[in-house]
Amino acid sequence: MTSRKPALAVVGATGAAGAVMLQILSQRADVWGEIRLLSSGPPAPSARGGGPSPHPADRGLAVRGAWTEVLPLGEDTLRGVDVAVFLAPEEVAARWAPIAAAQGAVVVDASPAFRADPDVPLVVPEVNPHAARIRPRGIVAGPGCTTLAMIVAVGALHAEFGLDELVVSAYQAASDAGQAGIAALRGQLAAVAGTELGTAPGDVRRALGDDGAEPFAAPLALNVVPWSGTPQDGGWSSEELRVRAETRRILDLPGLRVTATCVRVPVVTTHSVAVHARFERPVTVARAHEILATSPGVVLYDDPAAGDFPTPADVVGTDPTWVGRVRRGLDDERVLEFFACGDNLRKGAALNTAQIAESVAAELAAARAAPS
Amino acid sequence: MTSRKPALAVVGATGAAGAVMLQILSQRADVWGEIRLLSSGPPAPSARGGGPSPHPADRGLAVRGAWTEVLPLGEDTLRGVDVAVFLAPEEVAARWAPIAAAQGAVVVDASPAFRADPDVPLVVPEVNPHAARIRPRGIVAGPGCTTLAMIVAVGALHAEFGLDELVVSAYQAASDAGQAGIAALRGQLAAVAGTELGTAPGDVRRALGDDGAEPFAAPLALNVVPWSGTPQDGGWSSEELRVRAETRRILDLPGLRVTATCVRVPVVTTHSVAVHARFERPVTVARAHEILATSPGVVLYDDPAAGDFPTPADVVGTDPTWVGRVRRGLDDERVLEFFACGDNLRKGAALNTAQIAESVAAELAAARAAPS
Ligand SMILES: NC(=O)c1ccc[n+]([C@@H]2O[C@H](COP(=O)([O-])OP(=O)(O)OC[C@H]3O[C@@H](n4cnc5c(N)ncnc54)[C@H](OP(=O)(O)O)[C@@H]3O)[C@@H](O)[C@H]2O)c1
Ligand SMILES: NC(=O)c1ccc[n+]([C@@H]2O[C@H](COP(=O)([O-])OP(=O)(O)OC[C@H]3O[C@@H](n4cnc5c(N)ncnc54)[C@H](OP(=O)(O)O)[C@@H]3O)[C@@H](O)[C@H]2O)c1
Repeated sequence: MTSRKPALAVVGATGAAGAVMLQILSQRADVWGEIRLLSSGPPAPSARGGGPSPHPADRGLAVRGAWTEVLPLGEDTLRGVDVAVFLAPEEVAARWAPIAAAQGAVVVDASPAFRADPDVPLVVPEVNPHAARIRPRGIVAGPGCTTLAMIVAVGALHAEFGLDELVVSAYQAASDAGQAGIAALRGQLAAVAGTELGTAPGDVRRALGDDGAEPFAAPLALNVVPWSGTPQDGGWSSEELRVRAETRRILDLPGLRVTATCVRVPVVTTHSVAVHARFERPVTVARAHEILATSPGVVLYDDPAAGDFPTPADVVGTDPTWVGRVRRGLDDERVLEFFACGDNLRKGAALNTAQIAESVAAELAAARAAPS
Repeated sequence: MTSRKPALAVVGATGAAGAVMLQILSQRADVWGEIRLLSSGPPAPSARGGGPSPHPADRGLAVRGAWTEVLPLGEDTLRGVDVAVFLAPEEVAARWAPIAAAQGAVVVDASPAFRADPDVPLVVPEVNPHAARIRPRGIVAGPGCTTLAMIVAVGALHAEFGLDELVVSAYQAASDAGQAGIAALRGQLAAVAGTELGTAPGDVRRALGDDGAEPFAAPLALNVVPWSGTPQDGGWSSEELRVRAETRRILDLPGLRVTATCVRVPVVTTHSVAVHARFERPVTVARAHEILATSPGVVLYDDPAAGDFPTPADVVGTDPTWVGRVRRGLDDERVLEFFACGDNLRKGAALNTAQIAESVAAELAAARAAPS
């Protein structure tokens, strides 16, 4: 029996979700011993252009108020870690999460790499916390940020009314595409502000130039882009099929009818989702309000006549799922409509990951404390 | 029998939709005799601030290449008009359209004033052209721009498959709120460009100040706003209930199940709608593509792997309804998903109005030509 606090590695500490993870680690109860920050590591100066703005990995980052060096991800830098959270690209997680697990760490991965793996639980602590304890590969996954923008609210309503069908339309923010997405939207907005662009066909596209839309599938400033992810069978995008598959797994409803349309909007951070949910039992707005108002991780903000409904600009930087615009179907008393907003870098990525990591830390501590 | 071409009045010629109407009148076949431009009229200089930028109504506007004076709306300025199109606020139409009709004009109104009046047909020429001929009050109405962003495509699919249910989520542009909406979005974008706004809760709201959101219900730059219109029973917005009522009337399906969620996005002009449509008969993407590719007023643009899907920035300034992202429901072979974009000032307002007005003009000409 030892009282040593578990060691945490943050893989992808220099990214958009990683930066928020460092904030969250500084704000929440300090359950960690060492916190090790990992990234692709200090690159050759040529690769960075050698300009006056050094990469954060050259300097280290602040976490819990302490300057912490950022180390390159590798077998040696993963050694001695109890829990490794991955906020890194999918292919990095696919390669390195099993290595971290083989070296004894429990991995919590925010990428899509393992979300469909039946031996990797897909976990949202407010909805299916116990799933995190059964992890044959030593890996736990979190869902994508579009699912996370609505699943806590949907899960609470499902527990009461029994979910039968979901039709969701997403309004996805740019930071879903990481630091590159944030930079691209800011650059595009600077290019169109003060112009008369946005009134003739293709004028925004021409003004931004050939590669001006990158990393999006079309220009995002003064526009919305009905595409994110990669093309899949039947005209679907990978992002849309993920919302479907993730929702089914998290709610443990493998046959649930789920349809998603994923559209990017010119918002920096915070996803919104218009939800049309049909339940097995009749619903009322009053009962839905009660449930949403008392569910952990959900804030009910629903009085349009007073101007109270969630918007990304008001929700960004906060932890919960905000819900407003709750209405009962006009043609079907089992249908509920609502509008949910969630910060895609907080609950959508870093916070959900931190919550799972903390539950693993508590489990490890309990196991160590137990008489063997 | 006379060959005199009918006289047209454009009420609201100085507005956002009015400006596009003048373009359209200059571009389309010239069926009109006199074109008279009306607005609230030259105001007292004090009301305009007397600055260096005179109101267009002080100068007149170009239509069909000719400078045309803008006159104040009144009984005298409506006299001798055969067709009066109203692109003016709802309350102006409610008051003046019956006066114009009493003076012998056929009125085509783009405002919501008469859309629910059973004695006023609600017309989209591609869908229900014949309805325009039966107008007990001498008034024909066009639907709102959200309905018009999808109804031509929906109508074509309904004719083939038989519509059973619609669930739509709208991505509405700022110019839906007229010149004031365009100016507000441009001003807000100028205020946030080059800043780090959009990352802390409420920072956009604080930067824009107390009245900074007007005429929207919340700031629109770097944001989406799940509200447009006025509060109605059950938490619905007037805009959402209108999409429902208008769709039912135009398709002549009074019991159709229709649910809409209306959300504003930071786009200047062109509405988008994510459509989930259930039909009575099974659908295929191939057959839906054939129908959409051959329907007048619709452009099919659907090859996401090649980057082909409609976006507002590419559609703005064009006449048709653009449709992409066509998918068949994964759980129900009677469900079709698609994404439609339509310029809210063109087909969404001025073009639909012009089409109806032209059909009335043809009717009047035929009646005059017929032996009495
Ligand atoms: N952004 C969201 O809203 C969101 C939501 C849910 C899940 N996720 C998932 O979270 C992950 C990170 O997303 P992000 O938006 O934060 O991306 P990001 O801003 O692009 O950051 C990527 C991070 O991964 C690191 N990295 C890249 N290649 C690496 C390598 N070979 N070895 C080690 N580290 C490497 C980067 O380090 P360097 O700076 O050294 O290159 C950076 O820290 C992705 O899998 C994403 O799917 C993101
Ligand atoms: N914008 C859209 O996307 C859209 C789509 C479908 C339908 N509509 C409908 O079209 C109408 C006009 O919309 P908009 O966006 O063009 O609005 P807008 O830009 O605000 O223009 C309003 C027009 O109405 C005129 N007007 C205002 N008060 C008047 C009065 N008392 N007498 C005569 N004219 C008056 C204004 O003239 P002054 O310049 O002299 O004030 C201006 O020409 C509205 O009913 C709207 O619901 C708009």
